[in-house]
Amino acid sequence: MTADRALLTATLARIEPADATAARMAQQALDAKAKPPRSLGRLEDLACQVAGIRGSTATLRSAVVVCAADHGVADEGVSAYPQDVTAAMVAAFASGRAAVSVLARQAGARLVVVDLGVRTRTDHPGVLARRIGAGTANAARGPAMSRQEAERAVATGIELAFSLADEDVTLIAIGEMGIANTTAASALSAALLGVDPTSVCGRGTGVDDARLAHKVDVVRRMLAVNEVDTGEPLSVLAALGGFEIGALVGLVLGGAARRVPIVLDGFITGAAALIAARLAPACVDAMIASHCSPEPGHARILSELGLDPLFSLDMRLGEASGAALALPLIGSSMALVQEMAALDEVAAVPGPLDERDAGAPLPSGFA
Amino acid sequence: MTADRALLTATLARIEPADATAARMAQQALDAKAKPPRSLGRLEDLACQVAGIRGSTATLRSAVVVCAADHGVADEGVSAYPQDVTAAMVAAFASGRAAVSVLARQAGARLVVVDLGVRTRTDHPGVLARRIGAGTANAARGPAMSRQEAERAVATGIELAFSLADEDVTLIAIGEMGIANTTAASALSAALLGVDPTSVCGRGTGVDDARLAHKVDVVRRMLAVNEVDTGEPLSVLAALGGFEIGALVGLVLGGAARRVPIVLDGFITGAAALIAARLAPACVDAMIASHCSPEPGHARILSELGLDPLFSLDMRLGEASGAALALPLIGSSMALVQEMAALDEVAAVPGPLDERDAGAPLPSGFA
Repeated sequence: MTADRALLTATLARIEPADATAARMAQQALDAKAKPPRSLGRLEDLACQVAGIRGSTATLRSAVVVCAADHGVADEGVSAYPQDVTAAMVAAFASGRAAVSVLARQAGARLVVVDLGVRTRTDHPGVLARRIGAGTANAARGPAMSRQEAERAVATGIELAFSLADEDVTLIAIGEMGIANTTAASALSAALLGVDPTSVCGRGTGVDDARLAHKVDVVRRMLAVNEVDTGEPLSVLAALGGFEIGALVGLVLGGAARRVPIVLDGFITGAAALIAARLAPACVDAMIASHCSPEPGHARILSELGLDPLFSLDMRLGEASGAALALPLIGSSMALVQEMAALDEVAAVPGPLDERDAGAPLPSGFA
Repeated sequence: MTADRALLTATLARIEPADATAARMAQQALDAKAKPPRSLGRLEDLACQVAGIRGSTATLRSAVVVCAADHGVADEGVSAYPQDVTAAMVAAFASGRAAVSVLARQAGARLVVVDLGVRTRTDHPGVLARRIGAGTANAARGPAMSRQEAERAVATGIELAFSLADEDVTLIAIGEMGIANTTAASALSAALLGVDPTSVCGRGTGVDDARLAHKVDVVRRMLAVNEVDTGEPLSVLAALGGFEIGALVGLVLGGAARRVPIVLDGFITGAAALIAARLAPACVDAMIASHCSPEPGHARILSELGLDPLFSLDMRLGEASGAALALPLIGSSMALVQEMAALDEVAAVPGPLDERDAGAPLPSGFA
């Protein structure tokens, strides 16, 4: 067994469901706070979920990881932008002036930019080189990568998650950059969800019928040319790509194994999360869906994973922008558990008039 | 004319629609950034809205204002909690350990707690005393307050907004505390929206049929006993209450007059916003809806105002908790305008392959 395969096997074996007792204790702490039970709604669920993963309600230290790589399928003309945009944007992330750079800074999170295989190597000092190749092969003509490369990509993501966990990062937002990677994500989703490509290929705004039809056709060819066995998620990844998607799979698995919650971004991270869930169903417990994008496949993936996004703001940039935007909400949910007074600490807060309702949720706030 | 009436008249005269040119310039700045046009979705709308109100895209300085008062209609047994909870929670806000205290701190916002007429005066040094009375009268038996008191409440809110604007606060999140104030807000909404009380009275979780029916009955009596002329929003406020709702009306009007965006919280701030909109329709331009609560009247009010909430997390606490949670999103939208690089500043980012699509939105991110 290769080292990558061994790391993957060991990581999968380490993934366990969330700690229901820790989650329940967080809910009990919230129920004792100076507020009507459950009146903070999904912020309470979020705090309990994180407590269940972490096993504690300690303050979170966040990182945002953006994985980038190029896709051979871009040769099919599925994107309006040339492949060189991937490399240029990777440099922009590291320069501190891309959208995700701004949003990570706003959230007080460390930004980690990783080159998994951009066609043109980026020499920016802020970019972590973990290159598997100079972009994948064209998946419309054969497999995007070998099984070994797929395992290397996933192992790289696991190593990144472990390394961040070793540095006391306790919350990881993940995202990506790669021209043509919505096409790869569409093919992966269609295969793993068992649906027709038309239901996961996005029109977005401004894409005309002809271009959308072409994208659907390319996805059909990707699925027809490659022998995809959906019972073998890593083979599906190898066939359809890409390197950065493999690393995202590894970040989810590595985060779950080290009990670090993973904040998902958009459609492409969703496709990676779906692969991770097929490899280790319990890792879904560690996933937090930040937003839902207008890409039709995204809502389908979140539904399949049973995840409810925190917001839907029509964002479709990628780069972990939505995941970074969710970090303050998640941090606030934990701050409420830590910093709010218990009801019995608030001087002279009388209980409910009707003792029978003492433990029951109230209609709306304290009114 | 009284001083309060004069202040109100002068404030209403000062409210103008948002500056469409400033909003358009912000969109142009965002369109020139290193990202596909409109790919940040509603974050872009938010930045443009704030730019239209402020006339600039400068960094925002936030305050969270919580207005508290008691309601005589609590005597009808519409709340599960006794009135003393209002005073106890006001002290808790000021002590820094209530939910809104935590959320304001997380957002880096100043917290202002105002007593507009809590039954038992709060002597906490952190509470601003702007008391109009020791709670309103029971609106199920006659008007909650006099027209003069209603004008005093609104004028107090205007003065608060002006005072914060004078101190260079450029974004104000508003919220409330007052036992029985969802009943007042239900009566106000039913009157101003012209709908039956059943459609705006909330069940929430754990309220049985009997209690909900009683609340609806009390709202019906409030509307029957008082002569409500919906063409006179301040008379409606005076009849149905309360002091804190009047102050919230004033904060919206004062904020709009000073071109300070107002972030609305839940159902009760929504009812106040509805009154403000009836007094000065253009003030809706200055409103940002943070969230939508499960109270059925809230969604109706937001729809009437044409506002789309940023998130819906099942929060029903009040206290400005939802509005405070929205502040980091709003701050981030402005940071993107300020800090992101323009496309032409990012070295070697090539344009779209197809020049005809240069200005058109792309399907999904750069992919």
